[in-house]
Amino acid sequence: MNLVQPRLSKGLRDLLPEDTLARQAMIDVVRGVYELYGFVPLTTPAVEYLDVLSGSGGKEIQDSIFVVQNPEEEQLGLRFDHTVPLARVIAQYRDLPRPFRRYTIGPVWRADKPGPGRFREFVQFDIDAVGVQSEMADTEIIGGICDSLEALGVSRYQVRFSSRRVLNLLLTYASITPERAVDVFRVIDKLEKIGIAKVRLELTTGYTDESGDKIAGLGLTAPQVDQIEQFLGIQSASRSDVVKRLHDTFGSIPGANEEIAVLEKMSHYLDVAGYHDDRVVIDLSIARGLAYYNGPVFETILLDAPQFGSVFSGGRYDDLVMRFLGERVPATGASMGVDRLLAALRALDKVKLRKSTADVLVTTFDPQMNDDYIAMTFELRRAGIRTEMYFGTDRAGKQIKFADKLEIPVVLLYGPDEKAKNVVTIKDMSVGRARAQQLTGSRDQWLQERPGQFEVPRQNLAASVKELLSKIGI
Amino acid sequence: MNLVQPRLSKGLRDLLPEDTLARQAMIDVVRGVYELYGFVPLTTPAVEYLDVLSGSGGKEIQDSIFVVQNPEEEQLGLRFDHTVPLARVIAQYRDLPRPFRRYTIGPVWRADKPGPGRFREFVQFDIDAVGVQSEMADTEIIGGICDSLEALGVSRYQVRFSSRRVLNLLLTYASITPERAVDVFRVIDKLEKIGIAKVRLELTTGYTDESGDKIAGLGLTAPQVDQIEQFLGIQSASRSDVVKRLHDTFGSIPGANEEIAVLEKMSHYLDVAGYHDDRVVIDLSIARGLAYYNGPVFETILLDAPQFGSVFSGGRYDDLVMRFLGERVPATGASMGVDRLLAALRALDKVKLRKSTADVLVTTFDPQMNDDYIAMTFELRRAGIRTEMYFGTDRAGKQIKFADKLEIPVVLLYGPDEKAKNVVTIKDMSVGRARAQQLTGSRDQWLQERPGQFEVPRQNLAASVKELLSKIGI
Repeated sequence: MNLVQPRLSKGLRDLLPEDTLARQAMIDVVRGVYELYGFVPLTTPAVEYLDVLSGSGGKEIQDSIFVVQNPEEEQLGLRFDHTVPLARVIAQYRDLPRPFRRYTIGPVWRADKPGPGRFREFVQFDIDAVGVQSEMADTEIIGGICDSLEALGVSRYQVRFSSRRVLNLLLTYASITPERAVDVFRVIDKLEKIGIAKVRLELTTGYTDESGDKIAGLGLTAPQVDQIEQFLGIQSASRSDVVKRLHDTFGSIPGANEEIAVLEKMSHYLDVAGYHDDRVVIDLSIARGLAYYNGPVFETILLDAPQFGSVFSGGRYDDLVMRFLGERVPATGASMGVDRLLAALRALDKVKLRKSTADVLVTTFDPQMNDDYIAMTFELRRAGIRTEMYFGTDRAGKQIKFADKLEIPVVLLYGPDEKAKNVVTIKDMSVGRARAQQLTGSRDQWLQERPGQFEVPRQNLAASVKELLSKIGI
Repeated sequence: MNLVQPRLSKGLRDLLPEDTLARQAMIDVVRGVYELYGFVPLTTPAVEYLDVLSGSGGKEIQDSIFVVQNPEEEQLGLRFDHTVPLARVIAQYRDLPRPFRRYTIGPVWRADKPGPGRFREFVQFDIDAVGVQSEMADTEIIGGICDSLEALGVSRYQVRFSSRRVLNLLLTYASITPERAVDVFRVIDKLEKIGIAKVRLELTTGYTDESGDKIAGLGLTAPQVDQIEQFLGIQSASRSDVVKRLHDTFGSIPGANEEIAVLEKMSHYLDVAGYHDDRVVIDLSIARGLAYYNGPVFETILLDAPQFGSVFSGGRYDDLVMRFLGERVPATGASMGVDRLLAALRALDKVKLRKSTADVLVTTFDPQMNDDYIAMTFELRRAGIRTEMYFGTDRAGKQIKFADKLEIPVVLLYGPDEKAKNVVTIKDMSVGRARAQQLTGSRDQWLQERPGQFEVPRQNLAASVKELLSKIGI
């Protein structure tokens, strides 16, 4: 028999129960926040036409699309984000309510070079507001980011925003042609990661990095790079201070004030909504890699885990529906990198891990009493108690160890002795855990010791278990 | 500019907010039941190696795999169910707790011929118990099916089960060679759909159906088909009656009693757990199409919507891990067809549809007062009230219509008059709805009429809204 090796292709991974439970809990919390904001959920299929997916998002992303083949041999691919499918939906269903404010949760696929913490299938949880030009919408998205993180127990974070339109002022200021814009933005975006010295080199002559790779330069002149550095030097913990300095620097460029006013208005609205300088700052090095942004752009850093990068990013993308309709539809939104945020929260010990969903394990060590085990199990479930029935005829000690390994807090034991006395033995694992780990599986041994064990009348089982669970704090 | 047509490939679809909300509510309910049973969630990627996917599930399914290409040009495909990935996980992670009881929710892909209510990407919600041979596990799966449906408000349903092992007795009884087994089972499985006369024809000479298609026959002899018909004639509303008649029919076949005992034991355990003949029956025509089943198999019909077919199906598949490990790992489980069940429940009017997640809409008709709108909105959200802020500067009437269309129950109005009086106008849409639908959008008109409207002090806003929502029953 030819055995198939059980394995996954690179960049793909399984999420075992403990991780899935943690991710699910996180998603439930964030969903609650989005619904508090009145966003509504939308589901689109994983598989889209390639021409729908392509032409947006930039070359890097286009190259990373997983191509899919159906029996009709159409040109299909797996979505690489939720934004492009949203744009398609907006174009396809003309009678959707506008403004349309939706959230979407689901995997996206990018056949990038995988690395530690970098996967080819990962979950994004997006909020977007379509059909509104006002900075009130961008403000609301940032509010949603802040409230989501705080609902997840994170207080030390920083949302950083800028605007592509202010970056465009920089292009004018430094006499950079629009065709170079995305390349220049991409280098600027690396400021925090590689520092100003390397940014300068990459903008001009290029350099060789530590691993010996040659990083090409963009060939800008020294005066151009000086002006970029001057721009990037506009840093302040005060949003209004940054706005003031932008006016000072760019004021002479025609139309500059209007572009800067976007940041000014957002900053003001954020203050009104209660999101002040301590949590939300203007950071002019934020550019975002995606080609489709054309207004405010934002990123979010966990201050105690900056190495995870931005966990919540987005921006305004008014032209994304243009490809379908030939008309501009204003839109703004953000995407939570669920898996990256979860990894960061785990690193910060902010995730309560659970190995089981059960609060009670009904052991089943005497096959003569299966009927009793089944009856008890379903009785507890009908009383709303999350109950697992052990499957198998292993000795009681092994079944207790199983509960211990899965951190199930309460175990029920019911053998011929209990049946004769019409009682059930309840074992509070929080008392017995230390001892249980030493047990060898001999029923006699734990019968003698019974750490954390007590008997209750069989007919009071559900009430007694409930009482114990509430005592333990479950 | 070349416009891209916004569209989806056939068999794929979007789920707009109303449908996604309904699906999500259903999933939350069922997840609650599965966790009550102590099942734990597992997540596997959508993309698997083709050799992992293939060799199981039968030819029909193999042919329907969506093939995927990554940059390394490996042989990959989208999963067609959650059972094969579970088998891979069991084989790949040898230190998973056993028994392993997991649930999984997510889309699966089958490039079938699409039809009404038949999609190529659809959501399955599975429970499986791995590592246990006992009928207690099969019983628990059926309990989970019943409890899920009842938690969803469905009482008129019927779980029907049989066993592949009893069907194997039929093969012996009717002298059918094992190689024909799957073909014969597939025809038997159609009994309810096509009736006994056509089943007979398909087992023997074949026939031409209404649309003129030739259905090939399997070439069995008349005595063989008589024996199959005799078997299929064993029908009773009483499980124990079916078991008795099976003993009568097959008793002379060596080992038959042991095979029949599987149904007998399940029936007994189901009674102990509280699932009696009124909800769970033995139906010997149940065979299931998938090749990997080798023990009990089950299906679930909604008695008031049988046309939707089985909404919850499964069975025992002890050999599925064999392909990876060369060893048998007992396993049983069921899969809820989420989209099919949702369609059936909608047809039965058992789904509460919501178009919005917001309970309150803050209208924003005066741009001079944006700060006030933002402040009110975030104040309400911080009080836990699900609040949408209208995006846009449309007239108040249009904004009220928007709330009406989305069935948002409460609308807030705040203009210069309210500001001068330091009040907010609250509009109870349940009162004003009928009238609001006639409004033309003139602010004067609704200001005069104000159906369901009343003023509250600005500083009491959150408390007043809460009071109204609780009055309305939200």
